[in-house]
Amino acid sequence: MSEEKLINALKSTVGEENVIADKSYLAAAEATNYRTNQKIALVVKPGTTEELQACVRIANEYKVPVYPSSRGCNWGYGSRVPVADNSILIELSRMNRITDYNEQLGYVTLEPGVTFQQLFEFLREQKSELILSATGGSTGSSLVGNAIERGIGTGLYADRFSTVCGVEAVLPNGELVASGFGRYGNHTATHVYRWGSGPAIDGLFSQSNFGIVTKLTQWLMKLPEYFQLVAYRLKDNNRLPALIDKLQDMSMSGLVRPTITMYNDFRVLSTVIQYPFHAFTPGKSHPNEVLDYIKTNTPLGALASTWNGEISIRSVSQEHGKVQASIIEQELRPYVDELFVVEISKEEMMETLDNHYKGVTGDRETDALRSYLLRKYIGIPENTPIKQTYWRKRMPIPEQMNPDRDRCGMIWMSPIVPFAGKDIAKAIEIINSVVYKYPFEPAISLQCMTERAINIIGSINWDRDVPGEDEQAEKCYAELNATLKANGFFPYRDTTMGMQMKAEEGIDDPYIRFLSDIKHAIDPNNILAPGRYNII
Amino acid sequence: MSEEKLINALKSTVGEENVIADKSYLAAAEATNYRTNQKIALVVKPGTTEELQACVRIANEYKVPVYPSSRGCNWGYGSRVPVADNSILIELSRMNRITDYNEQLGYVTLEPGVTFQQLFEFLREQKSELILSATGGSTGSSLVGNAIERGIGTGLYADRFSTVCGVEAVLPNGELVASGFGRYGNHTATHVYRWGSGPAIDGLFSQSNFGIVTKLTQWLMKLPEYFQLVAYRLKDNNRLPALIDKLQDMSMSGLVRPTITMYNDFRVLSTVIQYPFHAFTPGKSHPNEVLDYIKTNTPLGALASTWNGEISIRSVSQEHGKVQASIIEQELRPYVDELFVVEISKEEMMETLDNHYKGVTGDRETDALRSYLLRKYIGIPENTPIKQTYWRKRMPIPEQMNPDRDRCGMIWMSPIVPFAGKDIAKAIEIINSVVYKYPFEPAISLQCMTERAINIIGSINWDRDVPGEDEQAEKCYAELNATLKANGFFPYRDTTMGMQMKAEEGIDDPYIRFLSDIKHAIDPNNILAPGRYNII
Repeated sequence: MSEEKLINALKSTVGEENVIADKSYLAAAEATNYRTNQKIALVVKPGTTEELQACVRIANEYKVPVYPSSRGCNWGYGSRVPVADNSILIELSRMNRITDYNEQLGYVTLEPGVTFQQLFEFLREQKSELILSATGGSTGSSLVGNAIERGIGTGLYADRFSTVCGVEAVLPNGELVASGFGRYGNHTATHVYRWGSGPAIDGLFSQSNFGIVTKLTQWLMKLPEYFQLVAYRLKDNNRLPALIDKLQDMSMSGLVRPTITMYNDFRVLSTVIQYPFHAFTPGKSHPNEVLDYIKTNTPLGALASTWNGEISIRSVSQEHGKVQASIIEQELRPYVDELFVVEISKEEMMETLDNHYKGVTGDRETDALRSYLLRKYIGIPENTPIKQTYWRKRMPIPEQMNPDRDRCGMIWMSPIVPFAGKDIAKAIEIINSVVYKYPFEPAISLQCMTERAINIIGSINWDRDVPGEDEQAEKCYAELNATLKANGFFPYRDTTMGMQMKAEEGIDDPYIRFLSDIKHAIDPNNILAPGRYNII
Repeated sequence: MSEEKLINALKSTVGEENVIADKSYLAAAEATNYRTNQKIALVVKPGTTEELQACVRIANEYKVPVYPSSRGCNWGYGSRVPVADNSILIELSRMNRITDYNEQLGYVTLEPGVTFQQLFEFLREQKSELILSATGGSTGSSLVGNAIERGIGTGLYADRFSTVCGVEAVLPNGELVASGFGRYGNHTATHVYRWGSGPAIDGLFSQSNFGIVTKLTQWLMKLPEYFQLVAYRLKDNNRLPALIDKLQDMSMSGLVRPTITMYNDFRVLSTVIQYPFHAFTPGKSHPNEVLDYIKTNTPLGALASTWNGEISIRSVSQEHGKVQASIIEQELRPYVDELFVVEISKEEMMETLDNHYKGVTGDRETDALRSYLLRKYIGIPENTPIKQTYWRKRMPIPEQMNPDRDRCGMIWMSPIVPFAGKDIAKAIEIINSVVYKYPFEPAISLQCMTERAINIIGSINWDRDVPGEDEQAEKCYAELNATLKANGFFPYRDTTMGMQMKAEEGIDDPYIRFLSDIKHAIDPNNILAPGRYNII
């Protein structure tokens, strides 16, 4: 039979042990943080680009859909569950080489299987002064995966896709194409100049189904001589618009670089504690009651104000940095309730990086907040952010977290909003008021990555083991998305749930028709991740 | 006959007066700064996007190639001469509206006919604190045209395409498509967030023939509170590699933002004087003799050292700026022969902008260099840079310059090179040694727009009225391009001469095949600028 032939063809390409039909493995791969019905036909794990190209050619021959996944950690967006039913899942975890590294020019070239932890360790082995921009994911997440989904990091290079320089991708026909100057084998500037000559095609391979990215060059920031973090807190949500406008003005004038992050109370608290089930019941208690209780009754509650902000400042000397921080402090203080500045020398940053690498626990730092900020901004990958997925679980947070396995409910709603007080206030008001209608708590961060836009990263968490919560979450998500869109706020990145909702709506606009024309031309058998980002 | 029908169809679309078949007009449009044979069938000037869409649909109906040009000022790259013979030239000069402007968020949305001068005047009328990044072109050049060719400006926003946010383009089938969130009519963030959701398509419309850009949002920088320019000179070319490495290190560490420009002597001199024909003869005198003569015998000669550099520093206060400049000065001084810092207050910048706008001549500034730097970095558009095209003309530079009409020979060779001393030294050595074999002088600028790459903007000038010089220039260009490419240095932007040379080579690689697949899908009649960037 044809299926057997297909399996044999794949086995002879990638090796028997890398074609997986084991039911329990497939079931694990079919699980994400919300309801899905899609089944996975088979899992294939190519070890090289050439093997991957052969797999794609086989998929064309047998006309079966394939769905690539780097490390499968796309939690809250659909993990590694294919958009189309009965796809072959191509896991790229074995393609985990760091193929290029340049300390002077500040870049690394990575395959999709490289994890944040692996890159961190690699940089320490080189005694590098380059740091990675940490993510809100886990140590085992794929940097390439995060970059091509246009995910977000911390600090100056937070808009990760903006600092990608050169993408190599396997096309749906199995050919390998490179963006920029990568097309010329001997070019000296492939990793240092993004656009190349002729049309820039790298953007086509982000958030799409036009190719499987096999290599990507990521620019890395150099540790500054002197580093400061301005941390601030705001108690009253009504003061948010004025603060946002002030921060935007400070960014446009160059007083701060747009490396500003803010977290609401639920976002801060849900990464350190779990829902107080002993005192409250979701849906029966208003989130604000829960908040008040946590803030007054738990030691960690004091950590979170209504809004909690951070600005990072790189400086070339202590004197230079202090002048800048004092202006920032003076300008910002009237707009916030608390403000303090953390100073970190390059020596301390290097020491912390090395200690973490060597497994030395206990920094010389005793202040927990200072330690957290330091680790975060020098690019130490952490699993802390995904603790949030256990916020509403009735089980303790396990040592080895796995939100898919543990049926943690989570979905992201991430609209892009102009960096302007009135727009932010409106979007936040929409999120809070819609989410409060359901038995969920809105966890929100504001990521200001440029002088002009803020990425609102919102999420809700639930317990997939509680009957009815999956359905409630779907309704909440649908209502929130519709309300945000009606007000002109669209997400920067889509969940597979969102893609399926759009598919039902049957969206047809010139942009989608243009992409469809391209898709039909380069993928006539529609084998590569059909339906992803609604491109068919 | 079919041609008459075509003309009538176009006339009824754009109006009789906007379809031009006048021989002298066509002849003028067929002229650029090197030899071309292509004839232009007709010139059409649509006034609106809708008219342009109709023209493109007519071109499909009659299967005639069309070639868009914004303002026709692409001198040294082919001006407005189509790549394919017998094309209809679509001039977009009538589409010159500024359709959006936001002072707080720092952007303008422009049609392709908008000139630098027009935008400058618009901003002054608004009493704006936003400034445009001036170009090496002329006051009458198109900002959209420059941006989609990925041209270069000055200061922080020099890599113009990096600060483009949202492109609207007419596809070869006449449909209108928008990049990013522009596809949603009501999105609040279209002009402030580049990528949108789904694949990023804006890069496809730069340096290509996939669409005619009808609207583009350009981010603009805000005038800083306090501005400094570090100007420096280097006499000995052998010291260039160490200086380049030092500048790169200063950029990576954040001591300077990558807003560094350097000019060689010929580049500086050719914008202020003409070749000293009374004393020398091109081809019979070595360029270095010419240089020595100019440097010692003319008052302006003293302006130019072997390398002449500028670094711009935006600061939030005088104190902050002075601390930074003193560190820069201390670090840079050992690597250069002369160094001085120019300080400019915001008040003076605003006054200079307003004076220029009101036609007040004579700045309060008497120092010519200071005045030049000030005007350049606050975004006053100038025609000075194109004086260079008259370097080798035996006529005086006319009041109204027109390098096409005046048969000024010029071609650009602009390789991207890693921001590293050894690479720059090698590329400069190649340019000088190849050009010195011909009767030309290499004019070179180094544009450091990121921490990682330098754009070497090289050009030669000649007199198209001197028999044989066109041919010599073609040979020089071909040899230089081939030598640079053999050493891994490829141009960031192509000339139509380069495109035709590649067409003869018959390049076939996965990148070109991928683009061809897209081209065939979206332009089955191959009507839009066939051959541009070798996409057929």
